[in-house]
Amino acid sequence: MSGKVYFDNSATTPLCDEAKAAMLGAMERYGNPSSLHDLGVDAESIVFGARKTILAALGIKCTTKLDGRQLVFTASGTEADNLALTGAALAKDFAPGKKIIASDSEHPAVLETLKALGRRGFEIVYIPTVGGQPDYELIERAADRNTILATFMLVNNETGAVYDIKRISDIVKSKNPDAIVHTDCVQGFLKLPFTPKSLGADMITLSFHKVNGPKGVGALWVSPELIRAKKLSPVIFGGGQESGMRSGTENVIGIAGAGAAVKRNHARLTENILSESQVREYLVKALSDEARFPGVKLNIPKNPAPHILSVRLPDIRSEVMLHSLSHDGIYVSSGSACSSNTGHGSYVLKAFGLTDREADSTIRISLGAQNTLDDADRFLSSFSESLATLVRMVRR
Amino acid sequence: MSGKVYFDNSATTPLCDEAKAAMLGAMERYGNPSSLHDLGVDAESIVFGARKTILAALGIKCTTKLDGRQLVFTASGTEADNLALTGAALAKDFAPGKKIIASDSEHPAVLETLKALGRRGFEIVYIPTVGGQPDYELIERAADRNTILATFMLVNNETGAVYDIKRISDIVKSKNPDAIVHTDCVQGFLKLPFTPKSLGADMITLSFHKVNGPKGVGALWVSPELIRAKKLSPVIFGGGQESGMRSGTENVIGIAGAGAAVKRNHARLTENILSESQVREYLVKALSDEARFPGVKLNIPKNPAPHILSVRLPDIRSEVMLHSLSHDGIYVSSGSACSSNTGHGSYVLKAFGLTDREADSTIRISLGAQNTLDDADRFLSSFSESLATLVRMVRR
Repeated sequence: MSGKVYFDNSATTPLCDEAKAAMLGAMERYGNPSSLHDLGVDAESIVFGARKTILAALGIKCTTKLDGRQLVFTASGTEADNLALTGAALAKDFAPGKKIIASDSEHPAVLETLKALGRRGFEIVYIPTVGGQPDYELIERAADRNTILATFMLVNNETGAVYDIKRISDIVKSKNPDAIVHTDCVQGFLKLPFTPKSLGADMITLSFHKVNGPKGVGALWVSPELIRAKKLSPVIFGGGQESGMRSGTENVIGIAGAGAAVKRNHARLTENILSESQVREYLVKALSDEARFPGVKLNIPKNPAPHILSVRLPDIRSEVMLHSLSHDGIYVSSGSACSSNTGHGSYVLKAFGLTDREADSTIRISLGAQNTLDDADRFLSSFSESLATLVRMVRR
Repeated sequence: MSGKVYFDNSATTPLCDEAKAAMLGAMERYGNPSSLHDLGVDAESIVFGARKTILAALGIKCTTKLDGRQLVFTASGTEADNLALTGAALAKDFAPGKKIIASDSEHPAVLETLKALGRRGFEIVYIPTVGGQPDYELIERAADRNTILATFMLVNNETGAVYDIKRISDIVKSKNPDAIVHTDCVQGFLKLPFTPKSLGADMITLSFHKVNGPKGVGALWVSPELIRAKKLSPVIFGGGQESGMRSGTENVIGIAGAGAAVKRNHARLTENILSESQVREYLVKALSDEARFPGVKLNIPKNPAPHILSVRLPDIRSEVMLHSLSHDGIYVSSGSACSSNTGHGSYVLKAFGLTDREADSTIRISLGAQNTLDDADRFLSSFSESLATLVRMVRR
């Protein structure tokens, strides 16, 4: 035992053995899926196998190539979000001036893409998420016949708040039955049970490195109705792979790993949820002990996911705590991993209701199926020590 | 020995042992390069190492993060082409109405992206490439002060024709010094020696599965001047990875493999060119024997690359020959692998000067460093048999 504790599973996860094995196998089968000869057909069968597995995890049976068109493999959840939003907004029937509704706490992949669409003349309406809950009444008021697209994440990546996608879909579609509902399920896939139908979603973003697959593979699920109506246009143009929706030679090795990881975690979904919930509840209880963790507060959303816990520190910058814990072999995050590129404070935590200072003093614990109560104890002990040391340093 | 002969290296290549080893190593180092803790820093160091290696293969020294910004990792050569063309056309200073010049035989990744830019109001001028040579005089006439971008591939993927990028760059920049020159070097990288300077290029597209790396990793080299002048905008928006030029969590395992494959083949470049040239020359000589291969013609461009050979059959559809050879464990291509998604005949071969029928009866042999003269003999013998059988079938 290395004594290391990885509590940053919403940033990325360890590759599971099943994914490794599938990737090793795919390394020997090097044909280009677009090639017509036997090696090409063989490589294509790897991609199709993963497609079937991933669709099955969404509750969708895929037996034909036509079924398979529902899943567009991308290089990341980010690319899938870009494809969903830009692809739908710029497809036929839609035009600048139309309205798009989103939460104010979406991932930058959504928010930055919406900004770009805003520059192209679309009206973007952002819905507040104070306390980790979208203002459903505001959605009701904002949605109208001019609304073409709504995009709300299933699980917020920083607070673990679960948004009620079905409710949002019902509201938006009651105003405009042709409106498209997209949901970024990167933090929800194989963490909560859902199907496109249970969410009322027309498009769903997935990323596989969050569920023990390799980095470099994401996907967009697109409803057969949307495909038939040609309501999605590509963002990456070229040789016409992925039924023309995303050109570029397929990441066969990565896709093989993604398929294997999904197969594994889909089979263990209930078990994983129970185990992650248990560790989270244990942490919630322990961290609520004011005597042991003075000044520590939990940012608990109205409807929390079982694997994310946002922890506010007593006036210690989150980065300082993160590095102190990292030094001790314990890995958590300050805000999301993605925000580290921009250096900005967490807009998500501010949307949740925190002040700048509070947002700057918040760390995120995100659990994976591999985490145990022992991990939690090891974290709690290291966190308690770091806290005592750092609070003294701040007070001097 | 399996007796299989892989002559489809322009479609994709076998993963080399060096890439495999690097990928296996990276599988254990699973941090998110954007994470601030030690595991994140460790993953980031894998990406930076590959970046250095790939820049070195372009003759560029990379010691700082700032140097590293020249290389934007993407998921494919296709995505790099999209980023180069859309990213440059839509960056500041440029506007619809401006002119873009390209050959008529570019990869679909370039041609389809240009079509999309055409729909957005840019003027696209296509230069003929009869005999595998761009009409340089026409470029001279087409280029003007309104020309913002020229995009010509270094090596054509179907004919092996080498285009004189330096000459094109000089022409275009003499008309407009601010014009940007992009070249898709997917088929030229580590097949011919070049540097950005020797090509006069501002942006260069690379793909690593063509040089024994994994599928799913490409890159765009962008000149430091272009970056400084902010003349490139992203196509995929989000968390700001790749210095904001391409968001999405990095494909760490794939990038590790790409770096290792480049290191290997860069060290062997001269040796590889010699060995591929030797096999190609051997095939050229053998296939020119009218008695042994009646009716077979070679589509040899003015300036051929050492690894691609386009072979015209006597009125046999290329797909039929391809399947016959595949049945015998010999893998070649009909046109490019990419065109198999569209089902269209090869526009490249028609641009070369072939009739529809001739283009439909052409196969492509593309060599890799692993190919030997024994492979050539095995191909020649199987090809000769297939030819005899298929010609008889056609004549019946």
